[in-house]
Amino acid sequence: MATYDSIDDANNAIAQKIISAQPRLVDVVRAKTVIPELSERLILHAGPPIAFADMPEPVQGSAIGAVLFEGWAKDESSARKVCEKVRFAPNHQFHAVAPMGGILTGNMPVFVVENATDGNRAYTTLHEGEGKVLRYGVYDQSVNDNLVWLRDVLGPAFSNALKLLPGEGLPLNPILAQAVAMGDDFHVRNTAASSLMFRELAPKLVQAAPPQKDLQTLLDFLSGNNEFFLTLAMAAGKAALDAAATIEDGSVVTCLTRNGREFGIRVSGLGDRWFTGPLGELDTLYFPGFGDEDACPDTGDSAVLEAYGFGGLVAVAAPAVQQLVGTGDGGFDDALATSDEQSEIVVTNNPNMPIPNWSFKGVPVGLDVRRIVSTGVAPLITTPVMHKKAGIGMVGIGKVRAPMPCFVAALEALAETHGVAKTT
Amino acid sequence: MATYDSIDDANNAIAQKIISAQPRLVDVVRAKTVIPELSERLILHAGPPIAFADMPEPVQGSAIGAVLFEGWAKDESSARKVCEKVRFAPNHQFHAVAPMGGILTGNMPVFVVENATDGNRAYTTLHEGEGKVLRYGVYDQSVNDNLVWLRDVLGPAFSNALKLLPGEGLPLNPILAQAVAMGDDFHVRNTAASSLMFRELAPKLVQAAPPQKDLQTLLDFLSGNNEFFLTLAMAAGKAALDAAATIEDGSVVTCLTRNGREFGIRVSGLGDRWFTGPLGELDTLYFPGFGDEDACPDTGDSAVLEAYGFGGLVAVAAPAVQQLVGTGDGGFDDALATSDEQSEIVVTNNPNMPIPNWSFKGVPVGLDVRRIVSTGVAPLITTPVMHKKAGIGMVGIGKVRAPMPCFVAALEALAETHGVAKTT
Repeated sequence: MATYDSIDDANNAIAQKIISAQPRLVDVVRAKTVIPELSERLILHAGPPIAFADMPEPVQGSAIGAVLFEGWAKDESSARKVCEKVRFAPNHQFHAVAPMGGILTGNMPVFVVENATDGNRAYTTLHEGEGKVLRYGVYDQSVNDNLVWLRDVLGPAFSNALKLLPGEGLPLNPILAQAVAMGDDFHVRNTAASSLMFRELAPKLVQAAPPQKDLQTLLDFLSGNNEFFLTLAMAAGKAALDAAATIEDGSVVTCLTRNGREFGIRVSGLGDRWFTGPLGELDTLYFPGFGDEDACPDTGDSAVLEAYGFGGLVAVAAPAVQQLVGTGDGGFDDALATSDEQSEIVVTNNPNMPIPNWSFKGVPVGLDVRRIVSTGVAPLITTPVMHKKAGIGMVGIGKVRAPMPCFVAALEALAETHGVAKTT
Repeated sequence: MATYDSIDDANNAIAQKIISAQPRLVDVVRAKTVIPELSERLILHAGPPIAFADMPEPVQGSAIGAVLFEGWAKDESSARKVCEKVRFAPNHQFHAVAPMGGILTGNMPVFVVENATDGNRAYTTLHEGEGKVLRYGVYDQSVNDNLVWLRDVLGPAFSNALKLLPGEGLPLNPILAQAVAMGDDFHVRNTAASSLMFRELAPKLVQAAPPQKDLQTLLDFLSGNNEFFLTLAMAAGKAALDAAATIEDGSVVTCLTRNGREFGIRVSGLGDRWFTGPLGELDTLYFPGFGDEDACPDTGDSAVLEAYGFGGLVAVAAPAVQQLVGTGDGGFDDALATSDEQSEIVVTNNPNMPIPNWSFKGVPVGLDVRRIVSTGVAPLITTPVMHKKAGIGMVGIGKVRAPMPCFVAALEALAETHGVAKTT
């Protein structure tokens, strides 16, 4: 275990794992082909462990929709009964991540992202578009039809297109590095990354020559979906952080996630142990007609993006996002101040991903539990906010602080097991 | 003439013309179908008027290539003889603009950009890609083949795709507004705009269903061409500035351009009169192996982008460009200082095109000759730099100041004709 002279040495090694990770999209397949446990009746969910009964309504709705999609029940009420008995487990236990409702079952299509540096893989659901979608807890026929289309049309088309690329898979670092310099934070803005990926893949999708009608529908869907890259950024983060977590030492956050009831973190020196706490309070800019009384508590695995160094941490790179969810007047100074503040709680910055309007300082890397507790600065998460009732969907864009008690508990555990002091 | 109470009133009206312009790409056709004069033997060129003998070698090379493309000669030496006798005229006299070599003849395909607000149109050549291209003065068979392909394959495919859009043509303001917030200055960086346009048009190009082989080549070409949007941004600027120039009063620059020997400007209150002067001195970051002794003097109509408010003026929006051609250490502060400085010489800012990392201040609008002379701040132009010999191509990226004598001469003319004082 003690292969590093100090916590700092271990943390630096972890940061290098994140920086040197080379995530690439290698395939789109049904989840059960890469997560064998999903061949059985098993439902994966976002966040730390939680029982069906404790999930907020939209997450339950997503689970019900997944049961209907899998054909384990014919209607809502019997699907609900299935959910009350079936086994649930966190996505994170299976190298997977999924946004919002965060539900994943065996026949759903998943992106397979491989970290070429370490050879490990991460999996994530495909972005369904906006409106009526499973991740917001909707489970009507249109949602089912869309999932079938993603599985049977988009998935195979992507799989074929990826095989036509010159290398093995689509390298995600070049897209992440370009897009973070083009205003994306990847959590609530993926316009640049989605556009860059589309420009790279569209010729291959055409070359793969699916039936003309499918090709047309597919290109229209991708062309109209600014956020399509979201889950790919998440999977890139998961692949990088899983590689980082193989260094079972140090005090770096390797997981940030929410299940709609609790916030959960994992820390490099503490293995797979969950440290959970109450959810942070959302500060949301609502769409017209909605307010705090409508908001579902914070949920989804998408905070993997902040653990990876993006989202709220790169506010300076995405001032247009900051205008929506800014902590001050929403101007550029506000965005700059946020990233400067968040910089205090990380190990280093990624020289391969410079942010031009931060004087080319790199994306923050390696949230350090010790720094978080000693400075009192919690990671800032930017996030879509969905309605508390299943089926309504997104009601605004918010920001939320990862709750401090998780980090305090983790630091205490580090102190117990490793004798880590609370400050650097 | 004197429909405005003051120069300031006229300038404000001009700025509003630029801000309210709604350029949209409506078609791709052979130039002679929209510029009837090009049905005769006529060669349009960049910049203010110039004779063939006075053009730098790469511009002559472009003209020779155009003669070969038009079939007016069978080989280089006879093409050169044609050039020595044929009529030349500036693009700007025919509502056209073209980059670098800037040569335009009747059978070349052009983008037709219509300003929906005023109904006027502007024309520009299609971006040929990099390497061996006519705009850098290359005129071998491959350049000719590429022009034929642009005319016979890309042009008709675009024309058909544009007809499938829901509205009339492709609105360019949304692309310009998004892309300037994503790091483009449109003069030396068009990555965001090219990607956004590709995402919007690719499904329509597929729907228009050209032969599969053509479609494949077309998508590969567009997918690989970061700078494809360049000439569209130029034509958007030309359409906006031509509308602005209908207000024949005030002191706003309506044209900035270079012919490789002279810099030329036009000013709203002085009609079509050219004010010319010596070219500014290029300050270039060269590609390895090249230096000042290799550079062709500054040329091309692309400085229409600075007259429109982009390019060097929006350095703050494109700090990655500034890193290449920055005036100081190339950091963000440097970019910010450049835009702040350039802001002093414009009438106002465009509220529809906010720059997030400039605290959402809009793109500068309306270069005012009075301010340029009184402050001594010349418009800053960012520009590709090509080799002084025809056929070698781009050797670096540079910056250059529009030469002050043009503005001084224009201000003196304004003083004579309108009694304009030299300071506001």
